[in-house]
Amino acid sequence: MTAPGLVSLVGAGPGDPGLLTLKGAERLRAAQAVVHDALVTPEILALAPDGAELVDAGKRDRLHAMPQEKINALLATLSRRGLRVVRLKGGDPFVFGRGSEEAEALTREGIPWEVVPGVSSCVAAPAYAGIPVTDRRFSSMLTVVTGRACELDDGGPGVDWARISPQGTLVVLMGVSALRGLCDRLIAFGWSSATPAAALGSMGWPGEKRVVSDLAGLPDAARQAGLSAPAVIVVGAVVALSRDLNWRGAAGAAAAEGRSHVEARSRA
Amino acid sequence: MTAPGLVSLVGAGPGDPGLLTLKGAERLRAAQAVVHDALVTPEILALAPDGAELVDAGKRDRLHAMPQEKINALLATLSRRGLRVVRLKGGDPFVFGRGSEEAEALTREGIPWEVVPGVSSCVAAPAYAGIPVTDRRFSSMLTVVTGRACELDDGGPGVDWARISPQGTLVVLMGVSALRGLCDRLIAFGWSSATPAAALGSMGWPGEKRVVSDLAGLPDAARQAGLSAPAVIVVGAVVALSRDLNWRGAAGAAAAEGRSHVEARSRA
Repeated sequence: MTAPGLVSLVGAGPGDPGLLTLKGAERLRAAQAVVHDALVTPEILALAPDGAELVDAGKRDRLHAMPQEKINALLATLSRRGLRVVRLKGGDPFVFGRGSEEAEALTREGIPWEVVPGVSSCVAAPAYAGIPVTDRRFSSMLTVVTGRACELDDGGPGVDWARISPQGTLVVLMGVSALRGLCDRLIAFGWSSATPAAALGSMGWPGEKRVVSDLAGLPDAARQAGLSAPAVIVVGAVVALSRDLNWRGAAGAAAAEGRSHVEARSRA
Repeated sequence: MTAPGLVSLVGAGPGDPGLLTLKGAERLRAAQAVVHDALVTPEILALAPDGAELVDAGKRDRLHAMPQEKINALLATLSRRGLRVVRLKGGDPFVFGRGSEEAEALTREGIPWEVVPGVSSCVAAPAYAGIPVTDRRFSSMLTVVTGRACELDDGGPGVDWARISPQGTLVVLMGVSALRGLCDRLIAFGWSSATPAAALGSMGWPGEKRVVSDLAGLPDAARQAGLSAPAVIVVGAVVALSRDLNWRGAAGAAAAEGRSHVEARSRA
């Protein structure tokens, strides 16, 4: 009998391959099977050895994504073949990533697993746009939700929109398709329409877009800029800091960026 | 005239040296000066080359920590000497780390800087204790604050405690000394005293402590366990998942942990 292989739930980070963790890179280099989401940079996937099985479980077209039960079953099957399995997810596996459901299914099956946390785009995308999500002068609270909670009721507890305080910073992941409804809702719940707000598309990926406006103007500004998913929305006083702190907009920062790379082997 | 060197604000992650990012490791290996906080693992500091200047700017004893203005001035001085400077902070530089104040000071002085985001302990410490901070069945909101906001009024906007919703997950960083006041306050604001709650000391460091209880019982449980700073407090329904998901408590997980390491050169 083959002993089941360890399943590593690895956070790939927000996009920039340099933001993968050392442990995540180590697990990928040793992987025999990799089950990954759509939002994982090719340079990161390329760390897996040539012989590793790669399975794309998350087509960008939501209709053709693999159902969660099928992903859970696939992870178990690969592990039972004795393989070292990496389940690679954008950002962090436990921040709106269904990582806990996969972990629970593996636990039920008696399969050994671990989490390798990743840099979450809820903090890194704003940072790449020159927005610190906290700053003791402007915000000492960070709240993170998903925009999908505007759209559907999946039986979970959902988002208590009325109680998100305008005193803090709000980050909304997967919020671009529901952007107008989101901004209207916040204004209806007492947020000033002049609250600084930003929509950040694909930060750290080629084709990234950075739209800074206010809560009332953000939906139109994002539409005009042609912003599309994946995007991170940030609302709160800290967004105004990006005027001075937009380090990647400056020429010097571009040079700094050029120095970042993953030592990836090509998969010729 | 020497051109000023790039100052990299690098997040060292939550403790486990394997959770440093590839880019963070690269910047450290190329650093000529490193200004670091107290909460940075020695294995991570050891990545800096032998000739690099190391400055400890954050003694654990808060009274002897370097004042923020002095840190800002030091970073500028090192950069003006033409050095590649790494400002190394626990977790992520922009999550309650005063990174934005340092970035602002550098911008004012015309010094080039960048952020290298890190894995924040607000997500990773719970993950290491088997607590997913979100799970669509139990919590679709994550709020992060610091416990220091219970203790002092530094003129900032502070925390709007009344509006933190018990429907989501609350993570409190630097909350151990104010733990009883924190739990009392949440109960006063309508949180059930039976809400699952955990206090996680030094997760991923030697001597880590994991205390799981409910909101009413947590202060006593933490005191009995001898929990001390640095600690992360988690409150919310997701904490109950740790009963099944405590992967690092199992023998298999310990073996997985043994495989993680930083390729650190010793500083003999």
